[in-house]
Amino acid sequence: MEFGVNFFPVVDPAKKSASDYFDECLRLVSLAENLGFEHVQCVEHYFSPYGGYLPDPVTFLAAAAARTSRIRICTGAVIPAFTHPLKLAGKLAMLDNLSHGRLDVGFGRAFLPQEFEAFGIDIDESRARFDQGVEVCRRLWSERDVVWEGTFQQFGPVTMLPEPVQKPHPPIFIASAMSQESCVAAGRAGYHLQVVPSVTSREQLQSMLSGYREAWREAGHPGRPRIQIKYTCYVAEDRAVALALAETFELNYVENMAQAVASWGRARSDAYRGYEQFVEKVKKYDFRSSHADNKVLAGTPDEVRDQIAVLIDWFGADPTLSLQFNPGYIAYGDAERAMRLFAEHVMPAYVGLEHAT
Amino acid sequence: MEFGVNFFPVVDPAKKSASDYFDECLRLVSLAENLGFEHVQCVEHYFSPYGGYLPDPVTFLAAAAARTSRIRICTGAVIPAFTHPLKLAGKLAMLDNLSHGRLDVGFGRAFLPQEFEAFGIDIDESRARFDQGVEVCRRLWSERDVVWEGTFQQFGPVTMLPEPVQKPHPPIFIASAMSQESCVAAGRAGYHLQVVPSVTSREQLQSMLSGYREAWREAGHPGRPRIQIKYTCYVAEDRAVALALAETFELNYVENMAQAVASWGRARSDAYRGYEQFVEKVKKYDFRSSHADNKVLAGTPDEVRDQIAVLIDWFGADPTLSLQFNPGYIAYGDAERAMRLFAEHVMPAYVGLEHAT
Ligand SMILES: [Ca+2]
Ligand SMILES: [Ca+2]
Ligand SMILES: [Ca+2]
Ligand SMILES: [Ca+2]
Ligand SMILES: [Ca+2]
Ligand SMILES: [Ca+2]
Repeated sequence: MEFGVNFFPVVDPAKKSASDYFDECLRLVSLAENLGFEHVQCVEHYFSPYGGYLPDPVTFLAAAAARTSRIRICTGAVIPAFTHPLKLAGKLAMLDNLSHGRLDVGFGRAFLPQEFEAFGIDIDESRARFDQGVEVCRRLWSERDVVWEGTFQQFGPVTMLPEPVQKPHPPIFIASAMSQESCVAAGRAGYHLQVVPSVTSREQLQSMLSGYREAWREAGHPGRPRIQIKYTCYVAEDRAVALALAETFELNYVENMAQAVASWGRARSDAYRGYEQFVEKVKKYDFRSSHADNKVLAGTPDEVRDQIAVLIDWFGADPTLSLQFNPGYIAYGDAERAMRLFAEHVMPAYVGLEHAT
Repeated sequence: MEFGVNFFPVVDPAKKSASDYFDECLRLVSLAENLGFEHVQCVEHYFSPYGGYLPDPVTFLAAAAARTSRIRICTGAVIPAFTHPLKLAGKLAMLDNLSHGRLDVGFGRAFLPQEFEAFGIDIDESRARFDQGVEVCRRLWSERDVVWEGTFQQFGPVTMLPEPVQKPHPPIFIASAMSQESCVAAGRAGYHLQVVPSVTSREQLQSMLSGYREAWREAGHPGRPRIQIKYTCYVAEDRAVALALAETFELNYVENMAQAVASWGRARSDAYRGYEQFVEKVKKYDFRSSHADNKVLAGTPDEVRDQIAVLIDWFGADPTLSLQFNPGYIAYGDAERAMRLFAEHVMPAYVGLEHAT
């Protein structure tokens, strides 16, 4: 099993400046590279403390690439709906060059109505914009004289520069929050997968992953599908310390998510059937049951190691766990300690395990 | 007088990979910081060897910021017409945070018809898109609950995150190729100025600068206007070596520019009256007269020092000269030597001179 690091800033200027947040993230990026983590990744969100420090993941990741030489640089995810594909393909290709071929591109569909509203995009088009956005980037990276006659953009022939280092193009991941259907489509297309277990039941996620793996296999794609599963991770020698931090910053996450998804109370879209549940889920949030359900990793190194054993039992040893060590406005020292304890006492128990299964 | 470094890649994969180009630029960025240059900047262009390695200047500059701690980080320029303002303001604010307040933002209007065509934007709208793009970024950086009812986008109320480090917003430069009118408008608005002397006569540029300075003064803005003038700079102990490199890479620039502007032969826009001259100018290009006219800096350190004395006589000592030391596919060693010789033998003669006048 491999482990990565993810960044999802649920923070606002009153709690921690963006400058301090980025400084701390970049220190953790360098540390993660030294400690053997496989990737770093970050989200794309706007306007609110729910991720809004990262309106452009590529900008942050270019800085991360400049500070490192081995670790994979991963978007988690970029949203094609909010960037013209010529711009998106171009800057991701720049990042693949700046990182010497270390880029993994996660594409997401987005789900917050206020983001679509601000960009003047009908949320009912989000599926089509996502599908076409992935396809047009893939073509711009791997073909010359591309002519594109999409629903939302038309251009060409153009040959995109720079060309990516990785051929035919950087690995593509599909970020899927809770859709079985999009997991199956990703497997069929030979794309990799990013999932967020906090918004699904264990059974839902198991079903999404098995549908994905089966679709990949049936399509006969070479190689192995890569799956990233995202967790927030609190580790301390003292159990009470870890759990207190976890409760504080999980509640911080849930409260800010509640405000961000509040617009689902008024927005309704056939394209997001079931997303109204978000609002209900958020209302019913209980830290203890979330922890008991292994939706969050928290405790001593031993306890977190045991939680991961359960996750492997549920989801297999082949996924990469993408871990957030610095959620919310946590103090830098707490994040660094968690990452170091994880690397020293948890990671070694599972590294290489995916090859044994 | 201060000196910066600019990057305008006129290169294609057959000559130098983007990965090598970026590596060399980042080495020069670190060296420039150590040698006392004031800023680094880069262009935005697409699809062709005429700048096409840099479809997103912010991505490159985020890497440059991550490798440095003092030097100013400058866009030269970003094109509002090609990026949604929420995205553009957001990623530039990220860059201001990543660089701890070292960002200078040059905004440009763009002029290549094929870029507008690919983005599906009417080139006749370029002036309005530029003016509104600068204004909406300025507001998103400095105000809360922004409501924007522009011609091309409508949104709000939104509060952009992250907020910039520099208050009320990062310094704004207007990139002006050959328009007296836009220089005057920039001065009136209290914006700084970026100009490219290679496309104007000396008299035109003098008139642009005096119109700009006068407009700034008459509007009663506090502080001093900042002016950046861009040159390519070839320095070697051996005059013949410097001039041979200069001729090679100036011709490389002109040939690739000729191809990039060829579409002006078919495109006509009232918004770019006179731009058809580009095609004629490019046809008539002569390296010796360009050098004699001080459109390019080339020679021994003594000779380049003398050229700059003439520029100061023409344009004053207050502009910052933004110098490209690695044009085209020049060997890295030639670029580094030029930068070192310039810093050691040319720069000291002029540093601080603007305060003496
Ligand atoms: Ca600070
Ligand atoms: Ca691996
Ligand atoms: Ca609708
Ligand atoms: Ca190389
Ligand atoms: Ca200065
Ligand atoms: Ca027109």
